[in-house]
Amino acid sequence: MFQYSKAMLLNLVLVSFVLLSSIRDGSAGITSSFVRPQWPGVDIPVDHEVFAVPKGYNAPQQVHITQGDYDGKAVIVSWVTPDEPGTRHVQYGTSKDKFKTSAEGTVANYTFYNYKSGYIHHCLIEGLEYKTKYYYRIGSGDSARDFWFETPPKVGPDTPYKFGIIGDLGQTFNSLSTLEHYLESGGEAVLYVGDLSYSDEHDYKDMGLRWDTWGRFAERSAAYQPWMWNVGNHEVEFLPEVGEVEPFKNYLYRYTTPYSASKSTSPLWYAVRRASAHIIVLSSYSPFVKYTPQYIWLKEELARVDRKKTPWLIVLVHKPLYSSNVAHYMEGEAMRSVFETWFVQYKVDVIFAGHVHAYERSYRYSNIDYNITGGRRYPIPDKSAPIYITIGDGGNLEGLASSYLDPQPEYSAFREASYGHATLEIKNRTHAIYHWYRNDDGKKVPADSLVLHNQYWGSNGRKQNEVIDEVVNVK
Amino acid sequence: MFQYSKAMLLNLVLVSFVLLSSIRDGSAGITSSFVRPQWPGVDIPVDHEVFAVPKGYNAPQQVHITQGDYDGKAVIVSWVTPDEPGTRHVQYGTSKDKFKTSAEGTVANYTFYNYKSGYIHHCLIEGLEYKTKYYYRIGSGDSARDFWFETPPKVGPDTPYKFGIIGDLGQTFNSLSTLEHYLESGGEAVLYVGDLSYSDEHDYKDMGLRWDTWGRFAERSAAYQPWMWNVGNHEVEFLPEVGEVEPFKNYLYRYTTPYSASKSTSPLWYAVRRASAHIIVLSSYSPFVKYTPQYIWLKEELARVDRKKTPWLIVLVHKPLYSSNVAHYMEGEAMRSVFETWFVQYKVDVIFAGHVHAYERSYRYSNIDYNITGGRRYPIPDKSAPIYITIGDGGNLEGLASSYLDPQPEYSAFREASYGHATLEIKNRTHAIYHWYRNDDGKKVPADSLVLHNQYWGSNGRKQNEVIDEVVNVK
Repeated sequence: MFQYSKAMLLNLVLVSFVLLSSIRDGSAGITSSFVRPQWPGVDIPVDHEVFAVPKGYNAPQQVHITQGDYDGKAVIVSWVTPDEPGTRHVQYGTSKDKFKTSAEGTVANYTFYNYKSGYIHHCLIEGLEYKTKYYYRIGSGDSARDFWFETPPKVGPDTPYKFGIIGDLGQTFNSLSTLEHYLESGGEAVLYVGDLSYSDEHDYKDMGLRWDTWGRFAERSAAYQPWMWNVGNHEVEFLPEVGEVEPFKNYLYRYTTPYSASKSTSPLWYAVRRASAHIIVLSSYSPFVKYTPQYIWLKEELARVDRKKTPWLIVLVHKPLYSSNVAHYMEGEAMRSVFETWFVQYKVDVIFAGHVHAYERSYRYSNIDYNITGGRRYPIPDKSAPIYITIGDGGNLEGLASSYLDPQPEYSAFREASYGHATLEIKNRTHAIYHWYRNDDGKKVPADSLVLHNQYWGSNGRKQNEVIDEVVNVK
Repeated sequence: MFQYSKAMLLNLVLVSFVLLSSIRDGSAGITSSFVRPQWPGVDIPVDHEVFAVPKGYNAPQQVHITQGDYDGKAVIVSWVTPDEPGTRHVQYGTSKDKFKTSAEGTVANYTFYNYKSGYIHHCLIEGLEYKTKYYYRIGSGDSARDFWFETPPKVGPDTPYKFGIIGDLGQTFNSLSTLEHYLESGGEAVLYVGDLSYSDEHDYKDMGLRWDTWGRFAERSAAYQPWMWNVGNHEVEFLPEVGEVEPFKNYLYRYTTPYSASKSTSPLWYAVRRASAHIIVLSSYSPFVKYTPQYIWLKEELARVDRKKTPWLIVLVHKPLYSSNVAHYMEGEAMRSVFETWFVQYKVDVIFAGHVHAYERSYRYSNIDYNITGGRRYPIPDKSAPIYITIGDGGNLEGLASSYLDPQPEYSAFREASYGHATLEIKNRTHAIYHWYRNDDGKKVPADSLVLHNQYWGSNGRKQNEVIDEVVNVK
């Protein structure tokens, strides 16, 4: 019933695979020997054209959109006006330059240390049609700016959709390379795994400005397709030494999520359904142990997942639960000890994390039998386990984390300390094609490719739980 | 230089020990076979005299005090007035009925579901003398009420002090028995390990009232000596189904801590120094992983600990890091994975936890070498490790957790599913006597006793790190 589509076969041909090996045969993991020249780990200067301020008095800038409801019929448009609040309205419609409708949003500003923000707008546009291109205009008069976005197809089990995955992006020339390559990848929405601007690596006085530059930098993608936001440690910005003790303050004013649509009580954890995927976003830096709001919410949200409607169950989190990089090694143990059992029980397809500035993909392994006074010692192959992918390789100013545990642990399938991004192209309820693209000196090179078989439907749509992901090794 | 004092020897004689065994000799742990009749696990009726409302219009009730600064020269007095805000002042002085001074506090009230609280007062009294008895009066006219407290001696390495330790108290007849026994124990201040009123076990409409009854119940001790508060899961009270989504709301209005004195930014985690002890209070239900405020604060607070001034380093937390009870087994793994290395590095003397409704004491064990891809599998004896004591046996309505892992894990020294409380009587920089008192049908019975040798000074004051705690087994 569910077979490889033409597009999928074409894609497989295009990546010119050399070797097809199964997840289960115990093949040893690969530590890539690829070494590439990099731009230095410094942020692009504030006055560089990539951060250009749009022309005109009070022109809207830092435009970005995110999904606005549970199923994709709403969008939240966010932007900043520098000089005065300006109009709170977004004009929109399906024809370019002919906006029949408008929605009204909210505006707020804030201070951070000695920085005073611009006027930050968030405007929810509801009641959209599925699979439709919308044009929208923000600002007014000579300073108005026009953008567009496409709504996703209706939620359904065999609805194809192509997600991009980016993490730890920052604002260096490596970041720019990642973002430009992602634009070439043709992804329709971004799953972002935390650490946005790295503003906290700058002097206190420059932190707010570096949130602004990052907003202008990301606009080239984020104004045209939804980015599903998640927080990383660089969003915490807990700075009691200068009186800034409200975690996530810069982030929460600027970035928003449709959390209440998934019955969450915090913008820091939420879920959306999009096409054939159910995407759960977790906060590594909010309480998550038993009895806390995030724990209670996740338990209920996992029970709400309907694999007959959304076969693909994807989790985003900042701290990886499995990583064999020396950097941040075992920092994810706390969350693993709390949630791993659920992730196996609910057959999560893939968990994307950032934090470690490198790329790594795991086999399907679990460590749920570990027990401080008994049980197994190490993770073991587990067909019900998610694949864990660390993709904190967006290119921020901290550089690459190039030191790995040696020998490579059994759970680690592929690892490489390069910059890049990934795409997950869902074909139907049984198959999805995954690529990790290394930034190769300006060329987009797929360096780790995989055909994922759905954890609920298997590869033949008969729910046999016979999961044999196919690794497509690329020349 | 530092020898057993007369008082200490007398105490040892009094407990009529039978056996003296060292922590290090690998003696097997004890699972007590003691079985006792209990009162049923139901809360005392609201109209029972133990919850009696003081007479007089707007008479202050639910009086409780806590340490008000870092070193014990301040006290925070808290109370509730039911009818109107009334006076915000506390009158106080060193003579009974002659109050030369007064301090002004704050007052607030709140709603929770359909409950409207009384007027909750918190008043900081500063600049007190050490080791002095103070009398204080709250309320006015015929409704005024008088209490007293004693300030601790000045912080110093050989300053004796006797702490009580209580957890998961609730408001049953078992709770009352625990509290009455504690009053007999002669403790000077209570280290409370979380879960106060268990109001969340009642109907939504009764939750606020059960915070009030608990406040009147605990007053018999808490009005006269400081209780160092900590939160448990029953303080979270996250109830989105009735629109109450602010964690710890009831608790935070009613109970306060001197958190800013220890540079904490939240009342949920803080430290105080008292006599010869440095006490660190952690929140199990707030973020604690790397990069979060509690993590950053704890790292800095541990560095501030000066064992030359306060030889005894004590940590309070709700979820135990080591427990071999079936109830809540391994719930503390998340925090253990984050903090255990520090607890060993800083040679914490003892960590008290609640949560599990039973009593358990560990040997000095650690599991800091466990590593998801290598390292040891099980905890091992570690002279630098704390003793972990679970004392969630205050007597709340949920009853006892009487099912233990079998066989008893090596790290577990003594465990018994009875109600009770403990005292930690610090003698000097090298020795402290610890007793756990089982509630034995109305009689206070010491059932687990220990001479702790200080983790920094050893037993001879020469910082040899030669820690051999002496278990005093009682008939």
